[in-house]
Amino acid sequence: MNFKIKFWYLQLILSVLVFSIVLQKTFGQNNTKPPNFIIIFADDLGYGDLGVYGHPTIQTPNLDQMAHEGQKWTNFYAAASVCTPSRAALLTGRLTVRSGMSSNKRRVLYPNSKNGLPASEITLAEQLKKVGYKTACIGKWHLGHKEQYLPTNNGFDYYYGIPYSNDMDMVVEIPYWEYWKLDNDAIKTNHFNVPLMRNKEIIERPANQNTITLRYTRETISFIKKNKENPFFIYLAHNQPHIPLFVSKEFKGKSKRGLYGDVLEEIDDGVGKIIAALKEEGLENNTIVVFTSDNGPWLSFKLNGGSAGLLRAGKGTTWEGGMREPGIFWGPGLIKPGLVSGLGSTMDLFTTFSRLAGVKIPGDRIIDGFDLSETLLHGNPSPRKKLFYYRGTDIYAVRLGDFKAHFITQGEYGQFGKKEVHNPPILYNLSADPEERYDVAKENPDVIKEINSLISEHLSKLVKGQDQLLETE
Amino acid sequence: MNFKIKFWYLQLILSVLVFSIVLQKTFGQNNTKPPNFIIIFADDLGYGDLGVYGHPTIQTPNLDQMAHEGQKWTNFYAAASVCTPSRAALLTGRLTVRSGMSSNKRRVLYPNSKNGLPASEITLAEQLKKVGYKTACIGKWHLGHKEQYLPTNNGFDYYYGIPYSNDMDMVVEIPYWEYWKLDNDAIKTNHFNVPLMRNKEIIERPANQNTITLRYTRETISFIKKNKENPFFIYLAHNQPHIPLFVSKEFKGKSKRGLYGDVLEEIDDGVGKIIAALKEEGLENNTIVVFTSDNGPWLSFKLNGGSAGLLRAGKGTTWEGGMREPGIFWGPGLIKPGLVSGLGSTMDLFTTFSRLAGVKIPGDRIIDGFDLSETLLHGNPSPRKKLFYYRGTDIYAVRLGDFKAHFITQGEYGQFGKKEVHNPPILYNLSADPEERYDVAKENPDVIKEINSLISEHLSKLVKGQDQLLETE
Repeated sequence: MNFKIKFWYLQLILSVLVFSIVLQKTFGQNNTKPPNFIIIFADDLGYGDLGVYGHPTIQTPNLDQMAHEGQKWTNFYAAASVCTPSRAALLTGRLTVRSGMSSNKRRVLYPNSKNGLPASEITLAEQLKKVGYKTACIGKWHLGHKEQYLPTNNGFDYYYGIPYSNDMDMVVEIPYWEYWKLDNDAIKTNHFNVPLMRNKEIIERPANQNTITLRYTRETISFIKKNKENPFFIYLAHNQPHIPLFVSKEFKGKSKRGLYGDVLEEIDDGVGKIIAALKEEGLENNTIVVFTSDNGPWLSFKLNGGSAGLLRAGKGTTWEGGMREPGIFWGPGLIKPGLVSGLGSTMDLFTTFSRLAGVKIPGDRIIDGFDLSETLLHGNPSPRKKLFYYRGTDIYAVRLGDFKAHFITQGEYGQFGKKEVHNPPILYNLSADPEERYDVAKENPDVIKEINSLISEHLSKLVKGQDQLLETE
Repeated sequence: MNFKIKFWYLQLILSVLVFSIVLQKTFGQNNTKPPNFIIIFADDLGYGDLGVYGHPTIQTPNLDQMAHEGQKWTNFYAAASVCTPSRAALLTGRLTVRSGMSSNKRRVLYPNSKNGLPASEITLAEQLKKVGYKTACIGKWHLGHKEQYLPTNNGFDYYYGIPYSNDMDMVVEIPYWEYWKLDNDAIKTNHFNVPLMRNKEIIERPANQNTITLRYTRETISFIKKNKENPFFIYLAHNQPHIPLFVSKEFKGKSKRGLYGDVLEEIDDGVGKIIAALKEEGLENNTIVVFTSDNGPWLSFKLNGGSAGLLRAGKGTTWEGGMREPGIFWGPGLIKPGLVSGLGSTMDLFTTFSRLAGVKIPGDRIIDGFDLSETLLHGNPSPRKKLFYYRGTDIYAVRLGDFKAHFITQGEYGQFGKKEVHNPPILYNLSADPEERYDVAKENPDVIKEINSLISEHLSKLVKGQDQLLETE
């Protein structure tokens, strides 16, 4: 062994040593690996749909337990009130007005859409791959179904799922009122010719949606078991409880809340199985599991949509019910248990998990995520004090601390809901008045002034991305 | 020692032995004493006001912990939607239409009321005294403030509290809008000349309401410590969060929810202290603590009233928000932990606790309470399948299993809310539709038929008591 090689060895040993010390300092224990991350992302789940968030008849004992052992966030937000922008923002840590993944003309991507997430965007999966993570996207993608836009081209080693919403590729025209029925047995999984993909291949079409939740859970557990030696990141994006609702036989009729409750109880059961698998593999002390959803409940589907609990309105709107979601962080070795009423956003996962994995935040672009790690690990106050509620590419509302100013309000998307511009804005104190009932604009001119300068500052730096949702073929 | 005395001894030993075996069979452990009972009864607390029932900014970690370690009931009801009848029903296990403690002309008792709970009624305290319990009523009474109606004349060894609502005996006329202010500092405790009593004596007038919650907690702990060798029953009926809201200095401004949140956080803190005292005295395995409230939130007071969460309307109404309440049962040695979505009523406490203490249920009258002990101790389904929603002395609605039929609906009491008679009734499936949004009467004629016969049967046996609320002096 010559001197050069010896020196290289010494350097390596030193580097490993320093890295270990940094990790130990960060995580307070003797881990030599950065933590695993699992994001469980429901589709159209309401703020009020879990037991621990107040639902009287949907039983979610596994999620309740996670909230009890970890952190239950009560001001945690999806970055948009509809699917495509919400997912794009989560994975990139950026408002989609920047990436072009939101539009004022088309709410989401459709099977005839031409584009998807621009290659220039950096996903959380791409970030984590830089430091050796194994990455999987299991479930709904909805950021472009053509090959170049698929998860496997966006930092994910593995993909298994339906590339867009489960109500697309409709074969039979189903009237709204069929969806309104509590027991909507007339709606069959083969009415929707959606593909199920593994990596870049379609392996089933129409996807059998009756077993889709179950199969997503199984795929997740299988990925955990195969990659237990690596650090891993799993983005498990359930297609449910988005309409049409489907469950496996075991859960059909199980809940008191009808089919919607059955679906949630199956998702909860899957969460329990994932936690059990982590424990079985001895990974529970070095894994963070997050549970949240892409946007609020789709209220126009009545009892086949969810409930925002005490919050106002639902999916498609910038009222609280449209964007505030359950936010449960679990990880017995890492997360300091507690109730968190500070602000958080799904965009913060990009920044926080990059930081915890030791990956640099990209310096060449504006990142909207905040690093929540001090809150998660030590219970410190959340660093996030503001939040922009975009609809399409327009700011409809802004939250600053306890307050939220509505500049524009509008009902659910499509033909529903009239658009109203508010000048001066409506102002609510959301901490005291989470139901958005009492306008306190007159009493708080300074808050409105501060919010206005926040908007000016934000807009002065904003470069709007080219609309990626518009083009079809 | 002669033979007679010896035989008497033998009898005594045998009796004790048999009693011990019965107790052991009932409670599954080696207790020689029947369990202690503590009912913590809030005033005008909404279904959605606790963390574990979904409130985003009121932090109630002690109650959340109790719900996690014990049973969280999500279909637990107060027996009326206003104070006096709700309390009378809880303590007697009977609908107040029987005792005369509800009226269509006066909602509750007032400082000028002549009467109170009739002596012929049997309270839970009187029941438990039969088998040697030490009993205390700490807090709001509201079942008659004249000597013969006081707690000390109704089975309680000890009374400490305000004998009616904390907004009575008003000295200064306070306009509604003062109550609507989030920071209602203009309202002072000496604006209400309410008495604070110990047993039969007034010890303070006006009661200093700023420290009343704290003092009720202290009195409770002191009673526990003094009576730890006995079985005891404490009925701790807080005057808060009924308006006017008052808190001690320590809690002023503590919560993010304004004064209402401060008040609840002080109550929660008191609950934590009571649990700690039970543990300190080694009583936690033989005590059942229940937390609930007398009726829903007083919504006309805006942010100084509470929130029913996802439930419709509030205090004074027979919508769910008026009568459904948090129902938390804690007792690590006795209560089987779990989520309970079966039906329960505050009236069931009379029957259940009588049974657990080994006291016979009175056979000379109709008792409306069900025995929930199999649910509490073993997690069996609740035996209660029906519920009458009375307003005054009229049936407004009836629940049967998942369903609720509204025959009459009306807004909050006083000048608010118009009365509407529904024929046929409106029918909701509360398990699927807890928000009472979708009338399913047409699809369920058999349910309505069954509810109608339930009412006929009920009315055929009903003897209405003489109105005790009406007379003044």
